[in-house]
Amino acid sequence: MKKLALSFMLTTLAANTALADEGMWQPNQLPTIATQLTKAGLALNPKNLTDLTGFPMGAIVSLGGCTASFVSDQGLVATNHHCVYGSVQYNSTEENNLLENGFLAKSFKEELPRTPGSRIYVTEEINEVTALVNAGLTKTMSGTDRYKAIDKNSKTLVAECENDDRYRCSVVNFHGGLEYYLFKQLTIRDVRLVHAPASSIGKYGGDIDNWMWPRHTGDYGFYRAYVGKDGQPADYSENNVPYHPKHHLKVNKSSVDEGDYIMVLGYPGRTNRYRTAYEVENQFTWTYPQAKAYREEIIDLIHQHSEEGSEARIKYESTLAGLANYAKNYGSMIHSYKKGSFQTRKQTLEVNLTNWLNSDAQRKAKYGKALNGLNELLKMDNSHQARDLILGYLRYNKMLTTAYKLHRLAVEKQKPNLERESGYQARDITRFEQNMKALDRRYDADIDQEIIVAMLTHYVALPKNDRVKSIDEFFGLSKSTVDNFNEKKLRKQLAKMYKKTQLNSQKQRLAWMDKDVNDFEKSNDPFIQLAVASFEERKAIEDKSNELAGNIQTYRPKYMQALIAYFNDNNLPVYADANSTLRITYGNVKGYSPQDGLTATPYTTLEGIVAKNTGIAPFNAPKKQLDLIKNKQYGEYAKKSIGSVPVNYLGTLDITGGNSGSPTLNDKAEFVGLVFDGVYESIIGDWDYDTKLNRSIHVDIRYMLWVMEHVDGATNLINEMDIVE
Amino acid sequence: MKKLALSFMLTTLAANTALADEGMWQPNQLPTIATQLTKAGLALNPKNLTDLTGFPMGAIVSLGGCTASFVSDQGLVATNHHCVYGSVQYNSTEENNLLENGFLAKSFKEELPRTPGSRIYVTEEINEVTALVNAGLTKTMSGTDRYKAIDKNSKTLVAECENDDRYRCSVVNFHGGLEYYLFKQLTIRDVRLVHAPASSIGKYGGDIDNWMWPRHTGDYGFYRAYVGKDGQPADYSENNVPYHPKHHLKVNKSSVDEGDYIMVLGYPGRTNRYRTAYEVENQFTWTYPQAKAYREEIIDLIHQHSEEGSEARIKYESTLAGLANYAKNYGSMIHSYKKGSFQTRKQTLEVNLTNWLNSDAQRKAKYGKALNGLNELLKMDNSHQARDLILGYLRYNKMLTTAYKLHRLAVEKQKPNLERESGYQARDITRFEQNMKALDRRYDADIDQEIIVAMLTHYVALPKNDRVKSIDEFFGLSKSTVDNFNEKKLRKQLAKMYKKTQLNSQKQRLAWMDKDVNDFEKSNDPFIQLAVASFEERKAIEDKSNELAGNIQTYRPKYMQALIAYFNDNNLPVYADANSTLRITYGNVKGYSPQDGLTATPYTTLEGIVAKNTGIAPFNAPKKQLDLIKNKQYGEYAKKSIGSVPVNYLGTLDITGGNSGSPTLNDKAEFVGLVFDGVYESIIGDWDYDTKLNRSIHVDIRYMLWVMEHVDGATNLINEMDIVE
Repeated sequence: MKKLALSFMLTTLAANTALADEGMWQPNQLPTIATQLTKAGLALNPKNLTDLTGFPMGAIVSLGGCTASFVSDQGLVATNHHCVYGSVQYNSTEENNLLENGFLAKSFKEELPRTPGSRIYVTEEINEVTALVNAGLTKTMSGTDRYKAIDKNSKTLVAECENDDRYRCSVVNFHGGLEYYLFKQLTIRDVRLVHAPASSIGKYGGDIDNWMWPRHTGDYGFYRAYVGKDGQPADYSENNVPYHPKHHLKVNKSSVDEGDYIMVLGYPGRTNRYRTAYEVENQFTWTYPQAKAYREEIIDLIHQHSEEGSEARIKYESTLAGLANYAKNYGSMIHSYKKGSFQTRKQTLEVNLTNWLNSDAQRKAKYGKALNGLNELLKMDNSHQARDLILGYLRYNKMLTTAYKLHRLAVEKQKPNLERESGYQARDITRFEQNMKALDRRYDADIDQEIIVAMLTHYVALPKNDRVKSIDEFFGLSKSTVDNFNEKKLRKQLAKMYKKTQLNSQKQRLAWMDKDVNDFEKSNDPFIQLAVASFEERKAIEDKSNELAGNIQTYRPKYMQALIAYFNDNNLPVYADANSTLRITYGNVKGYSPQDGLTATPYTTLEGIVAKNTGIAPFNAPKKQLDLIKNKQYGEYAKKSIGSVPVNYLGTLDITGGNSGSPTLNDKAEFVGLVFDGVYESIIGDWDYDTKLNRSIHVDIRYMLWVMEHVDGATNLINEMDIVE
Repeated sequence: MKKLALSFMLTTLAANTALADEGMWQPNQLPTIATQLTKAGLALNPKNLTDLTGFPMGAIVSLGGCTASFVSDQGLVATNHHCVYGSVQYNSTEENNLLENGFLAKSFKEELPRTPGSRIYVTEEINEVTALVNAGLTKTMSGTDRYKAIDKNSKTLVAECENDDRYRCSVVNFHGGLEYYLFKQLTIRDVRLVHAPASSIGKYGGDIDNWMWPRHTGDYGFYRAYVGKDGQPADYSENNVPYHPKHHLKVNKSSVDEGDYIMVLGYPGRTNRYRTAYEVENQFTWTYPQAKAYREEIIDLIHQHSEEGSEARIKYESTLAGLANYAKNYGSMIHSYKKGSFQTRKQTLEVNLTNWLNSDAQRKAKYGKALNGLNELLKMDNSHQARDLILGYLRYNKMLTTAYKLHRLAVEKQKPNLERESGYQARDITRFEQNMKALDRRYDADIDQEIIVAMLTHYVALPKNDRVKSIDEFFGLSKSTVDNFNEKKLRKQLAKMYKKTQLNSQKQRLAWMDKDVNDFEKSNDPFIQLAVASFEERKAIEDKSNELAGNIQTYRPKYMQALIAYFNDNNLPVYADANSTLRITYGNVKGYSPQDGLTATPYTTLEGIVAKNTGIAPFNAPKKQLDLIKNKQYGEYAKKSIGSVPVNYLGTLDITGGNSGSPTLNDKAEFVGLVFDGVYESIIGDWDYDTKLNRSIHVDIRYMLWVMEHVDGATNLINEMDIVE
């Protein structure tokens, strides 16, 4: 592995211990920050953390979107309730609503298969492949050729790696394309649901408390990994046996105290800490406010067209949750951006960087044009952003999206596998099929129709050069403007389309997966007709975007190189933006001041559950739990200094989406809880880490064990884990 | 003075130091709690506090509804911004909006006359008059006779006391009629506005922050008392001179620290700490929820029928503020009641009291029937509460209320002065006239009409025996029910009434003040006709209520006597409910936990103003102030431990409405701020004091002086005050 990033760290971090809480470190960077880790309180040898197949890294797994960890030698996996939620939902029936009642397998036999297609990924190898990905690139090639070359090189590497079908592989871009790494993950395909508390515990506080402190959520659940009798990954079979991981975490029921060292090992999804001032401004003053507005509009539509508790509403609950989640997320970021100095600091950084570059002829020659060149391309890319955002949110219409995807599959299947778009390769087909099946549980024709009307209402307000001719023609909108838009006529046409389309049938959708382009072109299904009619234009938009992406690939890595060199020269820490790969963040248990005159204390307690409880979801804790609390039946899990069982605690860790379900470890890498959220003031942390306001929220292991033992009687799992104190 | 209450205190408080923060003590009680006061940190001899004309009590004054204090030997009076708000509004013009700009008289000559009828009251004497008020009462007399006798005895005492026209006197009921005291207050009639910061400081946070922490409100303003050249109270005259109070408070610019002793001397309005469990339940489960709903309905109506910023909206701003203020207040109390154990504790108290009474034959004989007897009468009184609440909120209709009042004045004027209803005696006429004049600034015909329609819509839902025949007949509602209510017809009739009435003319209203009952009976003004037509029935309701009140007077004092004896026997503290008379409460500067996982720190800082600022009222601090804060120009007012100027602080004091404007004093009775509010969680404190949640909110003297010196340049006032450190 190339040690470039590491050499920066050596000089950097010695001078920057105050910034310890910030940073999502790659495992290979850890030896270089060994002094800091030990000083912060880590009792292990930091070098141990670099060994992906050793302890504790070998116990950390990905669920694809969430993180999890092995907590027994029999493949028991702990993660967040919201990470097992889909499986619980999938296994719920009208007679036995597991979301409401919770689920506990008292024996291996009672465990339930997880949502089809679910996997546990164990990262076994990480190799730098920058040269291989960049092979064949020339300075003079077009953006499109560059884009295609990188894409093909990456796909080839992945395909080679996946020759061993036990593994799933990916090539991931670091520092905006400055480096590429190939990740090789053992893929466990038989994953079963073991335990989830009732949603009134696991989701206590629901969307209202989401991203909020004080918090009282028991956000935990358990899976078990199964493999074939030969110990190798296998599809679900009754004959499969529990997987025996080489390493699993011990559970420390004494948990942690205020100020204690904690760390989180996991798969953070995406951060944007090195974007340009232009990108930041555009994102916070245009994209987020506009996207928030569309989200809120679609939420309102769904609410208006589905009664609380109706079948339609139930189908859209998860869509609603996703829409609301990010509407709130964007709202917080816009607020933080307006109140804070982020934009000014970005601008100052760029001025300083430019001065630093200009002060040295060699540097100037090498990097001088990177920032402006990058910004020029980004501006070009954004010139149609109003259109692109509308087309993006139009995808919440499921008939249209289904037609687009099915037709695209037929188009891509004409090419050799390696040349196909991501998402349409042979390796993607199982998931594609599962998505096509899942639609039935998430689709209502009336709501679908309202969404298309709403987004097309925005669409007709676009200027001429942002309009998509084929869409205009299909809906007779060519002469429509915001002033003369005939919604009634559109609704009439849509009513006919929804009556006629057969894409609402699972059987039909699956049948279309096997058809070829000609079949699509001859189809009289109105949504497929629209997909076919608009394909060329949509493809042209995509090609143009790829051309730009290819060109950006000549500037972004250079800009990052300049920035890293500048940071290095100024003794500032450099870690790569999150990109869904394995990282470690460390810090300690600590409160904060969300507002002048208020302090968030680092722990909440059982009594806070009672205080919040209204009896109405999401504040409807089980009566058994409330009674136990009222009678102060804390068992052995009370924390003396607070006189109760701690429920959630705050940490200074640098996390983001994807870290969900990550184990929180103490100084000896023992399991002391699960990270599941950040506080409202830290949402902008995806762009801008603030030591004073960035706080992660963790379920305390004491609360997990207390609920498991006293409320749910999950003693079989407590017995299975190695509990220490 | 009778020492009954005091003797309880002697035994009581020695054993109850932990309850020191609870209690609104009468000045004459203080020597009995001398040990506690000294222990809590008071550096003065507690006995000094009993002397109404000595220091510091002589410096404390009432504004009628608010408290204030002398802070210079030239009659300078400090109080809350919201207590001088009416005067600022009164002196505002379109050209010079003093509410917006603030006001500062740089010399005595620039001072502005206060709202007509405004007064400063200096309590000079308090005498117990229980025997005199109860003179002539017999056990066998009717409730009405009892009510009238008490009323007449009280009025006679007041009239005698007010023979000296420099004084305003009142007979006030303590412990529900167990004791009566006569209060004699020197009345300063020439009161001028000296200084008020801009509302963007004095009302920063507005209704949104009202009753909330964290708080950043500069809620202070200054008046000056003027008297004739002879030093005696006089009507406004250019020749009047500043009043020289015998005592005024020194201002300690070092203010107080966390944990320091503080006390508030003032005129708390009303508490209900000794109500029966039945009264509490009825109030919290019926009255408050219903009243909150009516308030919110009227707020909505006013909003719907007046554009933001319109003349109509401006006229109703203070009505809206009052409605919203108590809607929020009731909301908080309902919430606290539901979450807490208040009702259970009340019930337990009554069970314990009953057991204690029954355990002793003599006690049982004396008090055994008090509680049940009282509750029986209260239930009778509440049997028409649905009707009474609707008729009460109907009074937000100003034409109707004006007609009722003017007609009642004519009726009352037929009687000798002393026999007239309160509010219609000779002593009340000036204020009555001012109210009649003020209507012009607070009335809009459309809104007025909407309110009557809304309340009559509720009225027709009342059962037959709750209906007022004359109102039914006047509006043709005799056969109306909630199902057949003809709103259109009502609106038609009202439209005619509003077209015809002349009560919207100030001249007409004042003219009606001099007319007799015959003139009213012959009037063709529709509102006066309604007033005349409904008078007998409304009077009958009032008489019945007075009869009940007279009967309650035979039970409530006995119940209070029993309760006091029981508390005494159990070493529990006894202080009288607040009744707008002079009280002292002491405690210290202290934060609290509003919620599990959150701590309210005792101070807010200048930086919190910037953090809250949106530029839109009520979060629109002046640019000058924001710039000073950004540049950390704290002058000499920063508090080291927080690194900034403290803006507001929290105390444990037991306060309520009427305490507004009370000076907050340190251990040496030096002025260190002004109390102006309580936190949201303490609103139920009017009924139920909770040591953990009851917190008073104070403006820190450091913030007052910082704004005065650095923002408003009020150095003339700073120089006038005696500033110590």
